[in-house]
Amino acid sequence: MKYIRFRKDDEIYYGVVKGNSITQLDGDYITGETRPLSTEFALDEVEVLTPVEPGQVLCIGLNYEAHAEETGKPIPEEPMMFMASPSAVVAHDTEIVLPNLEHRIDYEAELVIVIGKEAKDVKREEALSYIFGYTVGNDVSNRHLQKKDGQYTRAKSFSTFKPLGPVIETELEPNRAPIKLTLNGEVKQESNTNDLIHDIEQLIVKITEVMTLQPGDVIYTGTPSGVGPLSPGDVVEAEVGGIGVLRNQVREK
Amino acid sequence: MKYIRFRKDDEIYYGVVKGNSITQLDGDYITGETRPLSTEFALDEVEVLTPVEPGQVLCIGLNYEAHAEETGKPIPEEPMMFMASPSAVVAHDTEIVLPNLEHRIDYEAELVIVIGKEAKDVKREEALSYIFGYTVGNDVSNRHLQKKDGQYTRAKSFSTFKPLGPVIETELEPNRAPIKLTLNGEVKQESNTNDLIHDIEQLIVKITEVMTLQPGDVIYTGTPSGVGPLSPGDVVEAEVGGIGVLRNQVREK
Repeated sequence: MKYIRFRKDDEIYYGVVKGNSITQLDGDYITGETRPLSTEFALDEVEVLTPVEPGQVLCIGLNYEAHAEETGKPIPEEPMMFMASPSAVVAHDTEIVLPNLEHRIDYEAELVIVIGKEAKDVKREEALSYIFGYTVGNDVSNRHLQKKDGQYTRAKSFSTFKPLGPVIETELEPNRAPIKLTLNGEVKQESNTNDLIHDIEQLIVKITEVMTLQPGDVIYTGTPSGVGPLSPGDVVEAEVGGIGVLRNQVREK
Repeated sequence: MKYIRFRKDDEIYYGVVKGNSITQLDGDYITGETRPLSTEFALDEVEVLTPVEPGQVLCIGLNYEAHAEETGKPIPEEPMMFMASPSAVVAHDTEIVLPNLEHRIDYEAELVIVIGKEAKDVKREEALSYIFGYTVGNDVSNRHLQKKDGQYTRAKSFSTFKPLGPVIETELEPNRAPIKLTLNGEVKQESNTNDLIHDIEQLIVKITEVMTLQPGDVIYTGTPSGVGPLSPGDVVEAEVGGIGVLRNQVREK
C-alpha cells in the first residue's frame, strides 16, 4: 500500500494511492487503524504533503562502502547516528533553499524508515514489525559547516534540508531496493540497499539499544556514492524502486 | 517565578513553588497563559516530574574555555550544536542507569534554556524574549562511544542520560549564574555562566539561523571544566544558583 498525506482546497487529508487515484482514509495512518472512505481524488490535482510529520529525525552516516570511500573516512563498525531537526522536513515538489552560495551544499538520496510503534530494545528478528513503511529522503548537507563543526546536526538541519516523500510504501523489501538520484535529468547516484553496511534490522536494533522511537519517527538510512553540489535552478530527483520519486527544485535564499 | 510539574496520587499537576509550598496552576505554563488555583501542595510530598517535556533537545559542545582545554579540543568559533533524543530526559530525584560499566560515563552540569515561543531567525536584541525560563541539566555522556562515533548523539541519548529540573526559573540573569556539580557531596565542577564562550543570546541567534524552535524545546548550554566518571551508588547534584539543585542517583543496568 502507498500511503499519502495531501492538501486540497485548504483541507489536509490522508489517503491510499493507486495509479493516479487517491482513496481517502478516515484518519492518520501513523497514529491508528484507518478505513477507506468513498471519496476519491486525482493525484495530479492535490498538493502532496510530507507523508509523516516526524517527532525525531535520525540519520545514519557512511552506511554504503563506496560513499565512505569517496569521503575518505573509515567504515563505521557500528551505525553512526546523528539527529537533524524535524523543522528541516519538507514535502515532494517543494523548494530546497540554499542559505549561502559560498558553501557547498550536497544532495544525498536515501531510503527512509518510518516507525509504526513505540520501539525500545528491539531484537533483530522482530525489527521489521516496528516499521510502518518506507519513503524516500534527500539528506541535504552543507559540507562547509559539516567539516567546520565536526558534529553534523547544524549542516543538515537548515530549513528545507530534509525533503521526504512522496508516499510511504508498506510492502517494500527494504534490503533489496534500487536507489537512484538524478540532477537535472542526469544520473548522479545509483545503487541498491543491498549495499548497506548496516542493514535495516541492524539500524533498528542499534538505535533502540539507546533511545525510544515513537510512531512517525523517521530514520534516514545513509546515502550511496555519487554525492555532489546543488545550485539554484537545479531539479533534483531521489528515487527508491517500489516507492517513487521525490522531486525538489533548488533556489537561492 | 519557579514553575514545577509534579505528580500526586497518580495525577499530574502544574504549579508555582515558594519555599516548601506549591500553588497549583490551571494548566501547562509552556503552552499558554495560566492562573493560580486555590489548591496548595507541600513540595516534599509530591513526585517532581521534568518541568517540561521537550520536543527537541539541543546541546552545545565545548562552550566553556577551561572545559575545551581539558578535552584537548580547539575552542569552537561558532556554537557547536548537536541533538540528543528526548527519550533520554528524566526528572530530579530519579536514577541515572549506566548501561555498560566498561565504558566511562561522565556527568556534565549545565544551564538549560527552555523555549517559550516559536523562534526562527531571531535577532540578538530579541533573543531573551523567546525564552520561557531556565532549568538545570546533567548532560550525561558515554565517553567511549562519543570518541568511537565522532558524532555525539548516541553517546548522549541513552535512556536516563538527560536529567532535567527540578524547576524552571523565569527571572534568572542567564549570563551571570553560578554553576556547580557535586559528586557524593564533593565539589567537582564550579564556574559561572559568565564564562560561556557563546552566551545565551548568541546560542538563540545561531540555532535559529538554522532551525525553528518550538515552545518546550530545550538547549543544554555546555558544561564547565571538571567533568568525570559516574559509578553505581553515586549521588550527583547539579546546581545553578537561583534555580535549584538537580539530584540523581546512579545505578548499574
